Amino acid sequence: MKLGRIAAQGVDGPVGRIVAVHPEEGRVVDLATAEMRRLMAHGANENAARRYAAAVFPPSMAAAIALGERFLDSAREADATHGADASRPIGGLTWLSATDPLVVRDCLTFVRHIEQAVKRVNMKISPIFLELPAYYKASAATLIGHEAEVEWPGYTEYMDYEFELGFVIGRTAHNLTPEEAGDCFFGLTIYNDFSARDIQGKEGQLGLGPTKSKDFATALGPWITTIDEFGGIDGLQINQLKPVGRVNGKITTEGDTSRMLWTPRQLVAYISQGDSIQPGDIIGSGTVGNGCRLEFGERLSPGDLIELELPGVGILRNRLGQPRKSRWWPTKIANPFSSEI
Amino acid sequence: MKLGRIAAQGVDGPVGRIVAVHPEEGRVVDLATAEMRRLMAHGANENAARRYAAAVFPPSMAAAIALGERFLDSAREADATHGADASRPIGGLTWLSATDPLVVRDCLTFVRHIEQAVKRVNMKISPIFLELPAYYKASAATLIGHEAEVEWPGYTEYMDYEFELGFVIGRTAHNLTPEEAGDCFFGLTIYNDFSARDIQGKEGQLGLGPTKSKDFATALGPWITTIDEFGGIDGLQINQLKPVGRVNGKITTEGDTSRMLWTPRQLVAYISQGDSIQPGDIIGSGTVGNGCRLEFGERLSPGDLIELELPGVGILRNRLGQPRKSRWWPTKIANPFSSEI
Repeated sequence: MKLGRIAAQGVDGPVGRIVAVHPEEGRVVDLATAEMRRLMAHGANENAARRYAAAVFPPSMAAAIALGERFLDSAREADATHGADASRPIGGLTWLSATDPLVVRDCLTFVRHIEQAVKRVNMKISPIFLELPAYYKASAATLIGHEAEVEWPGYTEYMDYEFELGFVIGRTAHNLTPEEAGDCFFGLTIYNDFSARDIQGKEGQLGLGPTKSKDFATALGPWITTIDEFGGIDGLQINQLKPVGRVNGKITTEGDTSRMLWTPRQLVAYISQGDSIQPGDIIGSGTVGNGCRLEFGERLSPGDLIELELPGVGILRNRLGQPRKSRWWPTKIANPFSSEI
Repeated sequence: MKLGRIAAQGVDGPVGRIVAVHPEEGRVVDLATAEMRRLMAHGANENAARRYAAAVFPPSMAAAIALGERFLDSAREADATHGADASRPIGGLTWLSATDPLVVRDCLTFVRHIEQAVKRVNMKISPIFLELPAYYKASAATLIGHEAEVEWPGYTEYMDYEFELGFVIGRTAHNLTPEEAGDCFFGLTIYNDFSARDIQGKEGQLGLGPTKSKDFATALGPWITTIDEFGGIDGLQINQLKPVGRVNGKITTEGDTSRMLWTPRQLVAYISQGDSIQPGDIIGSGTVGNGCRLEFGERLSPGDLIELELPGVGILRNRLGQPRKSRWWPTKIANPFSSEI
């Protein structure tokens, strides 16, 4: 099943709605509406049906996933039996980020991407990459959906995209083994980790991970394909996924997913050590090989249209906005330390 | 005003409740209950009063703060007029993290801490510290409250605390100037950034910032003191705050807050560039000088009681748990890269 989030006009402003997506039929089904119709066909009155449907299909995908089997069972039933009563054409919708996670974590595990990116910035690969899975946390406040415009911050002149698989988490878990991690995967989406390369280098010297280089936009979508469509996480043949990225219609990524340092099970198990994963959380796989322009010494331009296509999911499409002059930026301060730095 | 969050027993399990705290009187006021009483004194029936009070005082501090002036105005009125009807003794409560932010950001800006910590780990201070404010993002899934036990992850033998000021954000904002950032501060709390020093060094070599070294526990509390009690953010005389930390009753931190690289206004303005801050977000000031054991080459032990005292706020108290053996940890993999690393 494919599940997404759109904004619909409510009585006092836009509201998030969870939809079942049927790309091949060119339509989506508003699941709260379909669920209302289903309940009313089984004796509920309108107000009670609306109340129940809102509990099962809230605006938040994370809150919906947190409901466990009830959410997916209801989604399948409502879509199958009353989807026709709640259909909308797939064109012209306003898409929200496919999930609204508590924590956004992004890994770095495709071998070819690491090799090619590190070479471009004249760095070395640390041997610690063979000991520990690398990941950072991005801002949950700047997630965008399919077809949303990317704000181009005034502080960067070197914009890039990064094509990643987005693993959507299905349940709360802590201190997992890789064996136990298998049932934590709710689904797969496309994760575009927009990156400001010029400031990323400077930030690296502060030792605390990416901030301004990543936290202005992460696109998640166009929707989530539930993991059963791939035969579960072990059925997902990552090395055969064939991600294709395009800039303004021209192919710029033929993704190499042949070598990963760590499996999805290992990534989730590692993330859960000490920390806790939650329903609706998103975990980026790391950029696939050839998955960004940095690997080729190139950069994006204002107005570029970025399309990331992943068979089995869909096409995540975002256009870059025009740079906005920064209203403020720090100026260099005098050295307050006791010695030269 | 001092505002905290506790867990109370609801009809079907524990529920979060926002309380006004009166430490000098040894009591807290359940604000939803006080607000109900106030409304009923003005003609509301019980059900309607409960519904309204739940909207103004939800379990989430972030959701409450997001209500703007209505939240603080109601808190003051309910506490003043009907606090006596909703009081509980301050002892024996179960405290939740003082806020439940969308994003947890933690800065690094007190000069003495940076000097002393960097010296201990034989590193150098990058000149970029004079150009850009340094911060990282922590996990929002492992926040704990006052008097909660700290889980000691099996992967570390070098546990530390970090005494920081916690700035609680009051409103949504984006691309601020420092001049505009002044009214974004809702209040001040104590931020204990528990740290696993042995793994922190290894993580540093991955270049993506702290993960396992920080994401197992961040304590926020005991409660929030609203910023007006300090005369607003500009009235807060950080260099005169005198933070005092104790381990098992013995003073281990006499905080040096005399030199900051960046002001709170500058930190918030910088964080808001490209990114977005939200009501209830927490921003750690960075560890105060002398604010951790690493600066003295020392470490904590299982069972240690850590007390961080900040005049004007209170004492944040947490005990370290016993180490739990890791159920799984990655084993070193063979080098899959095309060349030696």
